[in-house]
Amino acid sequence: MSNDTLARLAAIIESRKPAAGGDPDKSYVARLFSKGHDAILKKIGEEATEVVMAAKDGDRARIVGEVADLWFHSMVALAAHGLAPADVLAELERREGLSGLEEFALRKVQQREGDGS
Amino acid sequence: MSNDTLARLAAIIESRKPAAGGDPDKSYVARLFSKGHDAILKKIGEEATEVVMAAKDGDRARIVGEVADLWFHSMVALAAHGLAPADVLAELERREGLSGLEEFALRKVQQREGDGS
Amino acid sequence: MSNDTLARLAAIIESRKPAAGGDPDKSYVARLFSKGHDAILKKIGEEATEVVMAAKDGDRARIVGEVADLWFHSMVALAAHGLAPADVLAELERREGLSGLEEFALRKVQQREGDGS
Amino acid sequence: MSNDTLARLAAIIESRKPAAGGDPDKSYVARLFSKGHDAILKKIGEEATEVVMAAKDGDRARIVGEVADLWFHSMVALAAHGLAPADVLAELERREGLSGLEEFALRKVQQREGDGS
Repeated sequence: MSNDTLARLAAIIESRKPAAGGDPDKSYVARLFSKGHDAILKKIGEEATEVVMAAKDGDRARIVGEVADLWFHSMVALAAHGLAPADVLAELERREGLSGLEEFALRKVQQREGDGS
Repeated sequence: MSNDTLARLAAIIESRKPAAGGDPDKSYVARLFSKGHDAILKKIGEEATEVVMAAKDGDRARIVGEVADLWFHSMVALAAHGLAPADVLAELERREGLSGLEEFALRKVQQREGDGS
Repeated sequence: MSNDTLARLAAIIESRKPAAGGDPDKSYVARLFSKGHDAILKKIGEEATEVVMAAKDGDRARIVGEVADLWFHSMVALAAHGLAPADVLAELERREGLSGLEEFALRKVQQREGDGS
Repeated sequence: MSNDTLARLAAIIESRKPAAGGDPDKSYVARLFSKGHDAILKKIGEEATEVVMAAKDGDRARIVGEVADLWFHSMVALAAHGLAPADVLAELERREGLSGLEEFALRKVQQREGDGS
């Protein structure tokens, strides 16, 4: 189910691109695309902050809504670069599995420790 | 690609909770849980910034990797609050569809405009 | 000069608090205070993202403007908690000096490394 | 408290640049410079998130400490672009004064409303 949801949303987002006829006066996503990359990226910073605030409040409904906003705007950013959620899911799958997941994460921590030493 | 990448990842994350026997010495996720909520949320702010920087560089491989990091740590935050990606996907589905999606987004813009007036 | 600028701005911000008669219809800061803490904090996440984007563009005028926005909204957040830039400057002075500054920073890195070990 | 806390800190930061002989093995700031721009900007995203979390907790001492961190790393970013806190203070002064400050802020809100219309 999950990948289908993201794929369907990604298709909607694609249809809002100027080249696909997206109309900034009728569509929020088309408007974001017309404002340009910085407007999209600004939303990612904004929604990440909202996730943090909702989580600090322990407000579960708001956490879900803000993570949805964050993922949605991430997908708009992906689309702006010719990418799709499928690329992200493939990357997550690549890292998946008990050892794989931990391996990736520990490697990152070790890199940071190496950097910091 | 399978249908439930996010669900499988969520199950792995759940298994890393202290109550499920997650070992902070062996697992990155278990370590995040043991550090507490702020450590998890800090990663969300951090990874959002990395997505923005990768996108500014137009580095597609890094964009995918950083969005994967952002979504992954969002899932850890969800888990910390007894939530799962399925909740986020359900919320996104609720907003889905041409009218629904735009309606939600335009409502938010209108609210902001209302706030700002 | 610097501390005077910040102190004068802090006094203006204080005068915009509802209790000081700040009018949300006439003053941006009064409006922020009336919207509440989350609206102020959201601006900090937003402006931090704008600093990052301006810096990635290497656009020096915009970097200055966005850091000004970031510091300004930080001062509003300080005021919301009964604090002032003088408190931040005192903290920076406390850490100041060759050894002090590095000591503070290295301690933080070492803590992180300790956390990550 | 003296008049030029920020100017003194800026001078220390300048002295940590590689060209000024800053040693990444002895100085946290020199290490940041040697890691490059992204490492500095990442800290800004990180510290902004920490300010938000400290403020959500209403922890005044931590708010001061995290805003100090945020401003400090902003100064490192400024230095990386040949800028100084004096530039930011000059920009804040330019906007200063009852009318000026509000004018700037209301103009921004109006721009956003214009964008969003």
